[in-house]
Amino acid sequence: MIIALDAMGGDNAPEATVEGAVLAAIGSNHKIILVGPEKLISQELLKHHKRYNVTSLDIEIANATEVIGMDEHPAKAVRQKKDSSLSVAAKLVADGKADAFVSMGNTGAAMAAALFYLKRIDGVLRPAISTSFPTVNGTCIIADMGANVDCKPEHLFQFAIMANLFCKRVMGIVKPKVGLLSIGEEPTKGNELTLKAFDLIQKANLNFVGNIEGRDIPRGKVDVVICDGFIGNIVLKFGEGIAEMMLKLVKKGFKEHPISWASLPFLWFALKDLKKKVDYSEFGGAPLLGVDGVCLIGHGRSDAKAVKNAVFSAARAAEHDLTTEIKEAIAKYGI
Amino acid sequence: MIIALDAMGGDNAPEATVEGAVLAAIGSNHKIILVGPEKLISQELLKHHKRYNVTSLDIEIANATEVIGMDEHPAKAVRQKKDSSLSVAAKLVADGKADAFVSMGNTGAAMAAALFYLKRIDGVLRPAISTSFPTVNGTCIIADMGANVDCKPEHLFQFAIMANLFCKRVMGIVKPKVGLLSIGEEPTKGNELTLKAFDLIQKANLNFVGNIEGRDIPRGKVDVVICDGFIGNIVLKFGEGIAEMMLKLVKKGFKEHPISWASLPFLWFALKDLKKKVDYSEFGGAPLLGVDGVCLIGHGRSDAKAVKNAVFSAARAAEHDLTTEIKEAIAKYGI
Repeated sequence: MIIALDAMGGDNAPEATVEGAVLAAIGSNHKIILVGPEKLISQELLKHHKRYNVTSLDIEIANATEVIGMDEHPAKAVRQKKDSSLSVAAKLVADGKADAFVSMGNTGAAMAAALFYLKRIDGVLRPAISTSFPTVNGTCIIADMGANVDCKPEHLFQFAIMANLFCKRVMGIVKPKVGLLSIGEEPTKGNELTLKAFDLIQKANLNFVGNIEGRDIPRGKVDVVICDGFIGNIVLKFGEGIAEMMLKLVKKGFKEHPISWASLPFLWFALKDLKKKVDYSEFGGAPLLGVDGVCLIGHGRSDAKAVKNAVFSAARAAEHDLTTEIKEAIAKYGI
Repeated sequence: MIIALDAMGGDNAPEATVEGAVLAAIGSNHKIILVGPEKLISQELLKHHKRYNVTSLDIEIANATEVIGMDEHPAKAVRQKKDSSLSVAAKLVADGKADAFVSMGNTGAAMAAALFYLKRIDGVLRPAISTSFPTVNGTCIIADMGANVDCKPEHLFQFAIMANLFCKRVMGIVKPKVGLLSIGEEPTKGNELTLKAFDLIQKANLNFVGNIEGRDIPRGKVDVVICDGFIGNIVLKFGEGIAEMMLKLVKKGFKEHPISWASLPFLWFALKDLKKKVDYSEFGGAPLLGVDGVCLIGHGRSDAKAVKNAVFSAARAAEHDLTTEIKEAIAKYGI
């Protein structure tokens, strides 16, 4: 597969993106096109030459003179900066020169670029961003996580169809369990939106377990969590905030009770699995589902490992021709 | 103050409720009316006699022959079981024989009983349940947490007015910071509901800090979080689920790496503050705001300490005449 990587996207670009590309090229037979200012990127690549012999790797550079910042207005930036690393990466996919594009940059701008250059799949009402979240027994994906704040039941229905296929093809789960985020397990519990969405989703050919509650997400009750983007975004950020709070309170406890320091050398062993579990760099980016081409959006704080994993996810989505599968499923259900 | 306590409500009733009443009576000058089957309650009270000399305490029993179970249909149960401990407790307030009632039982039934016997305050569109949540620097309250799943902007506006007063009078915060739960801090971020609610809330005489994001809740950015009950319920249960997940993963880590056991004797010191922080029994119940009388609903798993704290919260709300304050504020803003 050929993956276009926005080399200038993210807080740690281009260092993390270029190193991520190197790691991805070493670990696979994918070709990586690094998109960004040619001189800067080749200099960055050279840093890894001694260690990895980068000239032997299947990495190309596509020149792009502009950069879209993390805080720029998404649609405006994409419209105005046609030669930005993000726009050029998206164009490579639109022109059939790459099979997927990956960006760790401005999420809204990545969405805008995908919509502008790749367009929506026919019949898809709203593309959705689907993010991974750690659970007790693995990982689940949540769709939507912020692309759509006011949803109709038909939108949630399509999110379920698309996220189910992503989970199957890219995460390799044979029959993903799909749940609708609500406030009680009974089909009669929910708000106007979820009650109607429930009826639609249960008619589709999915492994739909029905409504799930907030606590069922970390409990790993389902593989795919469906909700509108307003709730998805709040839930994800709230989760981050809680983990941060618990860490802060534990640190405070350690600071105030020096006797507890004696536990530290041994505590590490118990905590290393937890650390790995909640390490977003293992997840490899969030797909934008419903555009006509593969687009993966990574966390702005991504390090090289996260970039590599995002490239691998994008390659898997392209290999399994996820876009065609989504097209067929959307056409079949014909909403 | 005279507090009617549903002695039969909750998973640990009547043991926890009766012991909680004893602790509350010892620790204050409030009179507690234990509502439930007279014989059962007096037997339960006698268990504490040796230790606390209960006959000297200001505790009374009001007989009620029926009990509403945790899983009964709320409105139906309240309508049919007029002599249930919950209904009789609510009636005591309606008849002016108690200043507030407290139940650890079926949340929906407690709401139904409050609405049936106390009625809504004139002008209140929807009563809201407001729950406490731990933050890095203390506690915040979230309103609504599940009473209202489909809200209008005016509902959120009234939740803000009512929760602000509860926070002021019962939690003792002079100028509570009020935030609207959304997906970005800018006033232009949000869904249809929150965008309109933002405009209403900012016109009121509140210390309104504007939109907050999910992560701002545990960060303690505000004292009062406003959202519809669908999101409030999902967020609260999700928070429970995450704490549970982290605990499980840490336990698993300890189990798999016996060397980490060496940390345990010292670890306790660092964790005891965290434990206290997330201990719901400190919070003392969730007020039902907007009914014409004070009603506090506690966690079904409440122990005696949680019952005592709920009784104290109810007493504070009654002492400060929260109901009259809410009446005046609602009349003033006249929605």
